[in-house]
Amino acid sequence: MEKLIYTGKAKQMWSTDDENILRVVYMDQATALNGKKKDQIEGKGHVNNEISTLIFEYLAKNAIPTHFIKKISSTEELVKKVKIFPLEFVTRNIAAGHFATRFGVEEGLAFKKPVEETYYKSDELDDPFMNESQALALEIATETELQSIWQISRKVNVLLTKLFEKAGMQLVDFKLEFGCLTDGTIVLADEFSPDNCRLWDLTTKKHMDKDVYRRELGDITSVYEEVLRRLRNELAKEVQ
Amino acid sequence: MEKLIYTGKAKQMWSTDDENILRVVYMDQATALNGKKKDQIEGKGHVNNEISTLIFEYLAKNAIPTHFIKKISSTEELVKKVKIFPLEFVTRNIAAGHFATRFGVEEGLAFKKPVEETYYKSDELDDPFMNESQALALEIATETELQSIWQISRKVNVLLTKLFEKAGMQLVDFKLEFGCLTDGTIVLADEFSPDNCRLWDLTTKKHMDKDVYRRELGDITSVYEEVLRRLRNELAKEVQ
Repeated sequence: MEKLIYTGKAKQMWSTDDENILRVVYMDQATALNGKKKDQIEGKGHVNNEISTLIFEYLAKNAIPTHFIKKISSTEELVKKVKIFPLEFVTRNIAAGHFATRFGVEEGLAFKKPVEETYYKSDELDDPFMNESQALALEIATETELQSIWQISRKVNVLLTKLFEKAGMQLVDFKLEFGCLTDGTIVLADEFSPDNCRLWDLTTKKHMDKDVYRRELGDITSVYEEVLRRLRNELAKEVQ
Repeated sequence: MEKLIYTGKAKQMWSTDDENILRVVYMDQATALNGKKKDQIEGKGHVNNEISTLIFEYLAKNAIPTHFIKKISSTEELVKKVKIFPLEFVTRNIAAGHFATRFGVEEGLAFKKPVEETYYKSDELDDPFMNESQALALEIATETELQSIWQISRKVNVLLTKLFEKAGMQLVDFKLEFGCLTDGTIVLADEFSPDNCRLWDLTTKKHMDKDVYRRELGDITSVYEEVLRRLRNELAKEVQ
């Protein structure tokens, strides 16, 4: 029988008949401010599942190891079960949000070299920012694991910066999560959607990500649908 | 004429007739919680000047480049003028204070390899924790400068861990600051006193540092005087 394994901010994970495979359900839910702001948003689960599927398939085609198996319904996908690293891996190409306020710089400052940050996934501790030396001292990951993960993250950044740019969007920053398969292989896990990245329209700089929800700038689902439409158009061209 | 250049939490910097030399005055003052707690404490300026002098002379004798020239009175010293890096370099041998609460670990956890952290010196921003990639992106220091600084910090840690241990104290953690001389040489600057390190008695684990003030555990000056006494005894043995 299927069992609910985990409920996150916008997804549920269920067991399946195969112990190495999980079913992910994208929910119609958005949260911000570490859960203090929370809303039901019709259609969001569907559009995130669609976007994340496109991105994970694109990355897999470009030799990035991922947990993704396949989409099985408009809000569900199957993924390989992984032991997740309790770290969020954030890459920033342009200063925005939290980074801009914390260090007193303007949103929009482009970095010569991307900024790389890790956060310790812990609800009780409010996901504290953590550097590599702290992660090693607390034995959260080994040096080799962190190196492999950043190597994959950097490839993802190059691939997706190009893809989004061709689709008329700037990839400002994004958060990835990684896990280990039973054989020890490190793979990209979680999702890739406007919930965990920042996308700005290439010309108007309009927000096309969760900042629309965080900052109450408009209807989040129609913005996400625009991201999906642009991605689909671009990926259709690539196939031709 | 001498001009006041800078007033910090526990020190003043004055210009001298020589444009490359500054006079440091250690004040009878203690602050905590980023200045929210503040007190006049008789004798503190003197004891910190004495301790910092002993430490900087010991480090210089052991090939660590420093800004220190000489002590000129019970509360004053002369130092070389440097362009200070706006970063605090923290090394932790044992979990304590801020680190323990932020990551939910016990005070006293000894690390296999020291934790290294940088903080961006900015009163308005409340000295935010910053990783290396952020410091590079904001062009606060170059990769080569950071490498040189951590190389010196690691030597300081080895030297002082041994020295304090022989004097009956555990060097739990400490904060260093660095600057550039006019010729570009990177040198250790600021001070080294129980104001910016944690020292625990080797056997009783009694606090012998600013935590005595932060946590209101007793008379800070007599504790600092005990640190000075133990250091003096140990260094006198080393000379023999």
